[in-house]
Amino acid sequence: MTKAVYPGSFDPMTNGHLDIIKRSANLFDEVIVAVLINSAKSPLFPIEEKVSLLKEATMDLKNVKIASFEGLLVDFVEKNSLDVIVKGLRAVSDFESELQMAAMNRELNHVETVFMMTATEYSFLSSSLVKEVSRFGGDVSQLVPPHVETALREKYSEG
Amino acid sequence: MTKAVYPGSFDPMTNGHLDIIKRSANLFDEVIVAVLINSAKSPLFPIEEKVSLLKEATMDLKNVKIASFEGLLVDFVEKNSLDVIVKGLRAVSDFESELQMAAMNRELNHVETVFMMTATEYSFLSSSLVKEVSRFGGDVSQLVPPHVETALREKYSEG
Amino acid sequence: MTKAVYPGSFDPMTNGHLDIIKRSANLFDEVIVAVLINSAKSPLFPIEEKVSLLKEATMDLKNVKIASFEGLLVDFVEKNSLDVIVKGLRAVSDFESELQMAAMNRELNHVETVFMMTATEYSFLSSSLVKEVSRFGGDVSQLVPPHVETALREKYSEG
Amino acid sequence: MTKAVYPGSFDPMTNGHLDIIKRSANLFDEVIVAVLINSAKSPLFPIEEKVSLLKEATMDLKNVKIASFEGLLVDFVEKNSLDVIVKGLRAVSDFESELQMAAMNRELNHVETVFMMTATEYSFLSSSLVKEVSRFGGDVSQLVPPHVETALREKYSEG
Amino acid sequence: MTKAVYPGSFDPMTNGHLDIIKRSANLFDEVIVAVLINSAKSPLFPIEEKVSLLKEATMDLKNVKIASFEGLLVDFVEKNSLDVIVKGLRAVSDFESELQMAAMNRELNHVETVFMMTATEYSFLSSSLVKEVSRFGGDVSQLVPPHVETALREKYSEG
Amino acid sequence: MTKAVYPGSFDPMTNGHLDIIKRSANLFDEVIVAVLINSAKSPLFPIEEKVSLLKEATMDLKNVKIASFEGLLVDFVEKNSLDVIVKGLRAVSDFESELQMAAMNRELNHVETVFMMTATEYSFLSSSLVKEVSRFGGDVSQLVPPHVETALREKYSEG
Repeated sequence: MTKAVYPGSFDPMTNGHLDIIKRSANLFDEVIVAVLINSAKSPLFPIEEKVSLLKEATMDLKNVKIASFEGLLVDFVEKNSLDVIVKGLRAVSDFESELQMAAMNRELNHVETVFMMTATEYSFLSSSLVKEVSRFGGDVSQLVPPHVETALREKYSEG
Repeated sequence: MTKAVYPGSFDPMTNGHLDIIKRSANLFDEVIVAVLINSAKSPLFPIEEKVSLLKEATMDLKNVKIASFEGLLVDFVEKNSLDVIVKGLRAVSDFESELQMAAMNRELNHVETVFMMTATEYSFLSSSLVKEVSRFGGDVSQLVPPHVETALREKYSEG
Repeated sequence: MTKAVYPGSFDPMTNGHLDIIKRSANLFDEVIVAVLINSAKSPLFPIEEKVSLLKEATMDLKNVKIASFEGLLVDFVEKNSLDVIVKGLRAVSDFESELQMAAMNRELNHVETVFMMTATEYSFLSSSLVKEVSRFGGDVSQLVPPHVETALREKYSEG
Repeated sequence: MTKAVYPGSFDPMTNGHLDIIKRSANLFDEVIVAVLINSAKSPLFPIEEKVSLLKEATMDLKNVKIASFEGLLVDFVEKNSLDVIVKGLRAVSDFESELQMAAMNRELNHVETVFMMTATEYSFLSSSLVKEVSRFGGDVSQLVPPHVETALREKYSEG
Repeated sequence: MTKAVYPGSFDPMTNGHLDIIKRSANLFDEVIVAVLINSAKSPLFPIEEKVSLLKEATMDLKNVKIASFEGLLVDFVEKNSLDVIVKGLRAVSDFESELQMAAMNRELNHVETVFMMTATEYSFLSSSLVKEVSRFGGDVSQLVPPHVETALREKYSEG
Repeated sequence: MTKAVYPGSFDPMTNGHLDIIKRSANLFDEVIVAVLINSAKSPLFPIEEKVSLLKEATMDLKNVKIASFEGLLVDFVEKNSLDVIVKGLRAVSDFESELQMAAMNRELNHVETVFMMTATEYSFLSSSLVKEVSRFGGDVSQLVPPHVETALREKYSEG
């Protein structure tokens, strides 16, 4: 039985993330989507909301669970006896820094990483771009699930 | 008739920018140089000065206009019925993030982007490097037009 | 008036090529699609067939013409008083060699090059891949126009 | 149950290949190492020898099988009901062409691909480099298993 | 006689830095390791401690000296009549920005730069990753010399 | 005393090669320009002519010697007790394959490699492009020394 973890900031989750989650759920017995708690950064969405947006989006995927973690990913991996880290890649520059991170994780903790290709139709998509578009009132309905679109609209009308 | 927009921060404009402006003015009927107003960042030059430095540098180019914009570039493009975004590229890493931005702009608003190669003699040049050199009293006379050099000197002697 | 040239091997043309042709026809007054005659290589399709496949695919585009050329592209550009070379880019490695070629063309003959991004849905597409798939009887109907698909099938059933 | 395929030329297999085979055997229920029969190229080792070198190197790995295939990888994947293609990556340029291939395979046949990072100590290693070194009598004992080293020596002393 | 400078932030120095220092000391008559004083950033280690950690690590290398500098590297190079800047490269993205910097330095001050490849076993290693791991109590004994490990532990237990 | 080797095909040498030779001659005590004899390829210029074109171009550089070699570069390096391989880099894709080669050379024979940046004005320049331009009667006077231009003209008028 192979347990995978798909880590990220998910601020907020996008259709690109959801695509990777679904596809890795086809390959591995269990997939933990792990939201990084980074106290040094100030995200748009609080950790609870990030988790609940992910839960709503993945409720039909039986072997997917949502979790959050603080500190080093490799510690989370060890504590939960996970087998492999899943990363979605959009571009060469992604790939380079991810490769360094993966090499470090292997060197220090013998944790394996596999890379999955972001679907070409989402190759331009990132949480930052979604926030940028949403902040100025642009249409993000092709980029995120409907409930995330609603959450974004509330967030920016609050401000 | 094809109207192009050449967007950027221009903090300050360099000879590399000027080279792209001149060359795109040869290809398109009208070129709008559009200075991004980014309230989240604190630029060295205020928006009015960025615009006026560009105006002085391009006064002989009849089909070039200088403007400023806030928010999403695609909104500026639509409001002004522009046909194409022009981007100057210096390097592969430029290219990747620009490609993602261009894909997003096409997806969301059907806006076209063309890329022009920065002249090899300016391939190392950026506004940040110009500021870095100028801040420590280095010679930037090969890197920016004379009136921009003067503006930089005033800026750093103020501080 | 700006005349552009879109050069290539087109062995055979794909939907990715057609997408660039249409989009550049929106930006420039005239677009010459120029098929390179390379006597050193043995293409799948003879030059006449490459040209006629392109003609059929572009018959509705009034400002697009199909031509062929031998030798240096810059000589073709000068002889026909063309203003700009259009290149479609799929990937970073494309970009690098294209950038070198563009720099050389500018240095030697002051010919300008602009790069257009291949549509994300065609980002994986190349004539070689189309031939590879077609040779083993795979389905290329999403990758090339119907008349090119027919031509490919005839080519490989001949063999 | 997830079945993976690890395709390649393996002319000959190296320690880098073996490393990917072992690591993917930890992640997936079954791993088929599939040697491409490419009648257009003339490999150093005939297909039977490539297969037998791989068999000897993997005899202790219970969930690893060696096979060969001709034509399109996606056809092999479908015929054998495989779930995922495994690719080892050494470098950015690898990654780009692999990404295009993976996008094509997904587009045409909905076949999934995952990428695993080549171990840093093998990041420079390729079958071509091994052959280059071996051809001139260099020492390849750190680069391939002992029985492959022997096979290479025989190959080049034959000539 | 050729004098080289190896500049950096060294916050803190790693085994990867030490590897480049040793190897450049084999190639050049004298190597100055020059620590950048950047008043705009708040490093983990104060400049004196960075210098002293480097001194302890290089005390056996007779032709290596440790220095610090403020402002432009090219000014430091000229003031000390140095011949060449040494840079260690880990990745393609490193290489691009380093290449731009090197081109700028050549253009402005005719300073030469040579690039040395980071050893493959340190290709993932950076000061930031070391700090990240160390901050959460991870083991960095393979990544930095023992006295730097001690310094890191003190730094983070202080907080 | 540091002896460097600058290896290549030099078919023919260009101004870009000459620039690297001059600059490395400033850094190292002795520079051997080593022309690879590759019996598998059919170069435009025979080995003797490649060597003599290089000799004429470097006759004023006292610490530069021209040599040729067959087989592995590392064997040449060991036989001649050389200290370092010099490589000129034009682009990221150059860099990647060169990095792999350098890693292999270090792993197998502890040979050091340093990379020097091709001057920006020659960043587009390669022997292949020079031959391509020259073959069709283009002007290469900015790209190679006069005596190489003459040799190219003779070569192509022969054919």
